[in-house]
Amino acid sequence: MMAARARDIGVTLRPHLKTPKSLKVAERAVPDKSAPITVSTLREAEYFAQGGYTDILCAATTTANKLIHADKIQQQTRARVLLVCDSVETAQAADMRAGELTASFDFLIEIDCGEHRSGVQPASPELLEIADTLKQADRLNLAGVMTHAGHSYATDMSDELAAIAENERAAAARSAEAIRESGHECPIVSVGSTPTVLHAAHLEGITEARAGVYLFWDLAQASRGICALDDIAVTVLATVIGHNKAGASLVLDAGALALSKDISANTYLPDVKYGYVCDAKTGEPYPGLSIRDAYQEHGMVPVPDESWYERLPIGSLVRVMPNHTCMTCAAFEGYDVVLDGEIVESWPRVNGW
Amino acid sequence: MMAARARDIGVTLRPHLKTPKSLKVAERAVPDKSAPITVSTLREAEYFAQGGYTDILCAATTTANKLIHADKIQQQTRARVLLVCDSVETAQAADMRAGELTASFDFLIEIDCGEHRSGVQPASPELLEIADTLKQADRLNLAGVMTHAGHSYATDMSDELAAIAENERAAAARSAEAIRESGHECPIVSVGSTPTVLHAAHLEGITEARAGVYLFWDLAQASRGICALDDIAVTVLATVIGHNKAGASLVLDAGALALSKDISANTYLPDVKYGYVCDAKTGEPYPGLSIRDAYQEHGMVPVPDESWYERLPIGSLVRVMPNHTCMTCAAFEGYDVVLDGEIVESWPRVNGW
Repeated sequence: MMAARARDIGVTLRPHLKTPKSLKVAERAVPDKSAPITVSTLREAEYFAQGGYTDILCAATTTANKLIHADKIQQQTRARVLLVCDSVETAQAADMRAGELTASFDFLIEIDCGEHRSGVQPASPELLEIADTLKQADRLNLAGVMTHAGHSYATDMSDELAAIAENERAAAARSAEAIRESGHECPIVSVGSTPTVLHAAHLEGITEARAGVYLFWDLAQASRGICALDDIAVTVLATVIGHNKAGASLVLDAGALALSKDISANTYLPDVKYGYVCDAKTGEPYPGLSIRDAYQEHGMVPVPDESWYERLPIGSLVRVMPNHTCMTCAAFEGYDVVLDGEIVESWPRVNGW
Repeated sequence: MMAARARDIGVTLRPHLKTPKSLKVAERAVPDKSAPITVSTLREAEYFAQGGYTDILCAATTTANKLIHADKIQQQTRARVLLVCDSVETAQAADMRAGELTASFDFLIEIDCGEHRSGVQPASPELLEIADTLKQADRLNLAGVMTHAGHSYATDMSDELAAIAENERAAAARSAEAIRESGHECPIVSVGSTPTVLHAAHLEGITEARAGVYLFWDLAQASRGICALDDIAVTVLATVIGHNKAGASLVLDAGALALSKDISANTYLPDVKYGYVCDAKTGEPYPGLSIRDAYQEHGMVPVPDESWYERLPIGSLVRVMPNHTCMTCAAFEGYDVVLDGEIVESWPRVNGW
């Protein structure tokens, strides 16, 4: 779906693999290993580079102390790791470190398109100063600009999403234009978040779009109307380990460690709590069942009536749909792939830094 | 400290290792590997059994589908895994499963001493029914009772903690007495949470106390007056990756994955947010610096004034004190042990299920 969307809107898709962090998932989303991908940490970059991917954007701003890791990846694999910076300071420190390593690095400059997390203002003097610093650096290459409209998660209105998408596009396109007018090339113009890629009216001036959570979806996205419940690919398998009849609750062996304490779906779907409880076979949510309290290894599920103790006796299996799949998946070493109710494969993932 | 406390109050300490999940930490807390330990999952039980521990309580209620894992641990190591149940249903299903496995299992019955998460009421008919079921089962052994005053975290008043500790003690002791009066032995009478073990006036009728978070401490405990900031042993090392001057913030490369979204210290210390930011060398908190927003890989730290950009330039290292160390440590594969500012050892840990 997202590949078709990128084709339709005329940009290259650079999937963000920070959600699955799995080579098996990557090989389905990006079968051509020379095609671009995005990651959030150098550990992920290393993992995917070792798996054969060669065009890897590490999307959080880097610092000079991390270049030794990026260099190792570039030395030991065929990958080029595209790094990000948003300050002259970092560009200068990176150039010095690159000299010590006798290595060279490609950089994108990060633009702030309204999230106000990181990045310089679009087409600002600071942007051009960083561009000049990168161009003048012996061992750094200015590869382009990137921006991320993370604030697109703060609405569930599609007209607002379209406006945020247009701001994101314009911020990146204007910045690329300013860099070109100052005499430098700006080959990559990268934007993205799953909601904005889906809601942009057009992506003129943009070369590539990044999106990641669409690979699995989650309740945070469903709550904002970006996907349907049925699209959510990942659930946590749990066992009913108790019936707390005095508290009118089922007790599950999935708590805060298995689900995370992320409750970001609740802004728009307050009945989600720590996640919807679903039929283990069909994956369908049981009406009215969600995890209200999450202890380290216990999840408490209030039941509307006593019939649930028969319906879900102690020892039965359920699945839990996650609020925020990036957070939930990070507790696990991999995925059991279910086809027609049977586990057909196990796909490992990478965690940590 | 906790070992001395247990000696003073006349009980055996059964440290809960769900916080560190590390053999290297266990070997310091419990040097005698035949001494009792507590874990929260069978994965941990297996890890510590393989490491030589032989008396392992898996403190969350079990179900029959998990006995194959417990059996494997008992077959492959010298460990005895002490399991927990709080229903006749589970005891019956476990006996049937034990028969199929031709294995036998020791059980504690869980008592609810006021947390209302799991467990039966103290000295209740249901308790005695479970005790009878376990005694009559061919392959199960009634080893005693256990309770956990998890609601001790809901206060920072030491007189309330003392009252909760007394309820916890009385619930377990009365239940053990009722089991003995019904004609069965009840060798283990187990209570605990770090705050109640520290605040109990006495532990008459109790044989052992469980406590875990004291092994590392965290801001949630410090916020409740259970420990001092200086006692907190684990911090997350992070790099300042940006200066967001428009937003008057430092940007760190430690976000929700590295810190977790647990903000449980904030009830009593609202300035903690996602964690205090500390000097990387000394570990001392910087006054007024904490992580206000936690994205997947970014942490935003508002600064009181511009001097912080010079004090903590891009590329500098800081440490972050965690809200809830059990949650934070679970994102990592292990610990770098720092002595006099140098990393002297790396201690692995076990994660997952």
